[in-house]
Amino acid sequence: MLTKSHIKLITSLNQKKCRQQEQLFVVEGVKGIKEFLNSSFKLHLLFSTETIFDAETITVSDKELQKISSLKSPNTAVAVFNIPKLTAVRQAIETLVPSGLIVALDDVRDPGNLGTIIRLCDWFGIQNLICSNATVDCYNSKVVQATMGSLTRINIQYVDLELYLKGYNNDIFGTFMDGSNIYKERLPEKGIIVMGNEANGISQAIERLVTKKISIPRFGDLKATESLNVATATSIVLSEFKRD
Amino acid sequence: MLTKSHIKLITSLNQKKCRQQEQLFVVEGVKGIKEFLNSSFKLHLLFSTETIFDAETITVSDKELQKISSLKSPNTAVAVFNIPKLTAVRQAIETLVPSGLIVALDDVRDPGNLGTIIRLCDWFGIQNLICSNATVDCYNSKVVQATMGSLTRINIQYVDLELYLKGYNNDIFGTFMDGSNIYKERLPEKGIIVMGNEANGISQAIERLVTKKISIPRFGDLKATESLNVATATSIVLSEFKRD
Repeated sequence: MLTKSHIKLITSLNQKKCRQQEQLFVVEGVKGIKEFLNSSFKLHLLFSTETIFDAETITVSDKELQKISSLKSPNTAVAVFNIPKLTAVRQAIETLVPSGLIVALDDVRDPGNLGTIIRLCDWFGIQNLICSNATVDCYNSKVVQATMGSLTRINIQYVDLELYLKGYNNDIFGTFMDGSNIYKERLPEKGIIVMGNEANGISQAIERLVTKKISIPRFGDLKATESLNVATATSIVLSEFKRD
Repeated sequence: MLTKSHIKLITSLNQKKCRQQEQLFVVEGVKGIKEFLNSSFKLHLLFSTETIFDAETITVSDKELQKISSLKSPNTAVAVFNIPKLTAVRQAIETLVPSGLIVALDDVRDPGNLGTIIRLCDWFGIQNLICSNATVDCYNSKVVQATMGSLTRINIQYVDLELYLKGYNNDIFGTFMDGSNIYKERLPEKGIIVMGNEANGISQAIERLVTKKISIPRFGDLKATESLNVATATSIVLSEFKRD
């Protein structure tokens, strides 16, 4: 049975502060919930209008689902999962850091952009995503929604990005208008790729730590758009790093 | 002075039907409005809390701006522009069709995706975007917002896509899971690139007209995400077509 305290809990998880206090986050929709159930994430509560999950389910009416959903048209089920313990994630990351490409985000603020970037990391086999502390929380429900389950497969760590990059020993790439043409560069299999904030790009403090400035050339005439959206720029950069 | 009929008009333009009846659409924000003022688009009405435009402006208070804005935090100005006459656009397109790449959208429904794709076309020097009639309207305010002014530089035409493609004489490319690796293909400077619907991809009727099936390879393990978002897929495809 859906209780008042369930509703209070789930509603509170819209706030980052409450997610961090409770170490819980919300996943909506059958497909997404199934991906989390099939992953190492631990289920806390599951509410559904249908009995379709291999997990303990609290059956709710459509009206009740509406009360706990953040969507205009709720989609059958809402689940609450535990945020994985930092120690476990950190260990995983420390083991993996040396082996391959890492994407780092310098204050990406839009949940849709972060969700898309997580999905891109998954597609391109990037296992580690490093976020500056000011980057939008990856357990924000809009991010979770946009990742389409990819959140279950990517190690995401929030760090003081400046400190983190200072401790890194390989090349640090960043996209800048005056960087060298990405299509002409030899791109290694190891390194950190920094992507910047939607409005301001990469901050000056982080720019100083970038060892290779790259750029995505603009085609067409000079009046063309000034910049690419950070998620589409990430897709082009990752495609270039990963293609032969 | 902002009148009731102004408010009524602007509010009505949230609906595609009204935009088509009035042949008008809304642009919000100083930067976007300036891009449209500097283009061939014709201004119909301009409301601003500040006098910063080289155009006839109706000064409004913050409270009045709130009434005509579709944004939670309105940004100084709201303008109404005329939708360019179809005949002019068509002529432009008919002149341009033979010379270069064309992007065609088979029922892209999300305004943010269409806006991002318009911006990508602008970045990559694609002058013509062909949309199936079921694709979201490019004068939808969320699309206009997401294009960041690129809408002023791209010729967009809504057509019966099946008929349109049947009349085309060069290669028609489409992305499919079983297509050939895009990184290994010779990609021409001329052709139509079809991108599909968010949930269903390219429809069967259109698939039959595709002459070259391509795919963006997935890296990493088999459990990875099933698909890329249509806007990020478009960015990778256009980057591949345009790079040397």
